Amino acid sequence: MFLGKVVGTLVSTRKEESLNGLKFLVVRRLTIENEMDSSYAVAADAVGAGVGEVVMVASGSSARQTVLTDKRPCDAVIMAIVDTWEVDGREVYRKE
Amino acid sequence: MFLGKVVGTLVSTRKEESLNGLKFLVVRRLTIENEMDSSYAVAADAVGAGVGEVVMVASGSSARQTVLTDKRPCDAVIMAIVDTWEVDGREVYRKE
Amino acid sequence: MFLGKVVGTLVSTRKEESLNGLKFLVVRRLTIENEMDSSYAVAADAVGAGVGEVVMVASGSSARQTVLTDKRPCDAVIMAIVDTWEVDGREVYRKE
Amino acid sequence: MFLGKVVGTLVSTRKEESLNGLKFLVVRRLTIENEMDSSYAVAADAVGAGVGEVVMVASGSSARQTVLTDKRPCDAVIMAIVDTWEVDGREVYRKE
Amino acid sequence: MFLGKVVGTLVSTRKEESLNGLKFLVVRRLTIENEMDSSYAVAADAVGAGVGEVVMVASGSSARQTVLTDKRPCDAVIMAIVDTWEVDGREVYRKE
Repeated sequence: MFLGKVVGTLVSTRKEESLNGLKFLVVRRLTIENEMDSSYAVAADAVGAGVGEVVMVASGSSARQTVLTDKRPCDAVIMAIVDTWEVDGREVYRKE
Repeated sequence: MFLGKVVGTLVSTRKEESLNGLKFLVVRRLTIENEMDSSYAVAADAVGAGVGEVVMVASGSSARQTVLTDKRPCDAVIMAIVDTWEVDGREVYRKE
Repeated sequence: MFLGKVVGTLVSTRKEESLNGLKFLVVRRLTIENEMDSSYAVAADAVGAGVGEVVMVASGSSARQTVLTDKRPCDAVIMAIVDTWEVDGREVYRKE
Repeated sequence: MFLGKVVGTLVSTRKEESLNGLKFLVVRRLTIENEMDSSYAVAADAVGAGVGEVVMVASGSSARQTVLTDKRPCDAVIMAIVDTWEVDGREVYRKE
Repeated sequence: MFLGKVVGTLVSTRKEESLNGLKFLVVRRLTIENEMDSSYAVAADAVGAGVGEVVMVASGSSARQTVLTDKRPCDAVIMAIVDTWEVDGREVYRKE
């Protein structure tokens, strides 16, 4: 999984029918030190994440292993909201 | 999923039989700020997208989760046409 | 899918038994403007492609969705020979 | 699989329900010469790995082929702790 | 598939139980001109490859399509030993 920050939303009215009801969020990737880099993904939201939150994203077929995304043409899903992470004993991020 | 702009079309008459009837489009990737970069993909079209439209592309096995692409040797599908997306509260793109 | 040019062949006599009969081709990736770049893949051939032809390659589990590659340890397949492609209204490539 | 060093831990209380009980570790990738590079992944732990250990990580759908990760939205799993590896006849790494 | 040279071995005693009996090899990627680059993968061996041999590696779910790797958390497998490959009519590699 990669770590990302939800930075935006995306609206689509014309889409594969099976995608109705899915919320799509724009997620910018974070480095291991909690800095945003230039790459991003659009991911379906399985946990009710909001803009500004730090999340974990699962990609590929694993993105379809949620009730919301099962059998849908979706290759990235937000499957967890991050509370804290530590690197080398330091706390790099803590949710406020 | 990644965001891309449909910039072209592709014709193939000699292909795996199961691909008959699929439309293939050339999609250039967009940065999070709606600028085209040099990478691209050829994707099957599941939503009737046209040249010039901004779309979402699902890759890998997820690209086969549409009626058109089911069980076909296809690893990228346009599964939504984008109306708008926002980053940091700014509207980056709006379909005209 | 990515676009590539078939530039060579590969012979292997000691291989997973299920691969017997599959033809492997060396495919160099093409940019959107039909220029070869340095990356390449070895792909199984499902359409009778020859050296010099421009082809589409499907990767990952999608590479197993042909009769020839079904259930085989093969992650890239040539599933179409390209006749033409267009970008921004210009014809970038036409098969001779 | 890639080789990595476990450098940290990650806590998430709000997540896909099926992920309850899984431990997530932050793994930094290692070069073939056992040097850390800047890329990393968050992986589920299937073998009881600890911070500081060198591990193998399987990605994609293969990450779901353990009892702990089966049918879960998880795209990276630590499936082995490395004892030693050799390159060109030299021992590059040995677990202490 | 990518082409690689087997450059080393890897030993792990603490691993997912289903991996018992699998041999893991360190494979350095080769360019199309048979030069080693800095990237590598650890792959399971399905064909009895040895250090120094040039091999083909299948990645992702395709790596599980051998008797040895079926249903195991393994995302890369050596599925063929290469005898020769040609590019632009030149023989780039021949097994001695």
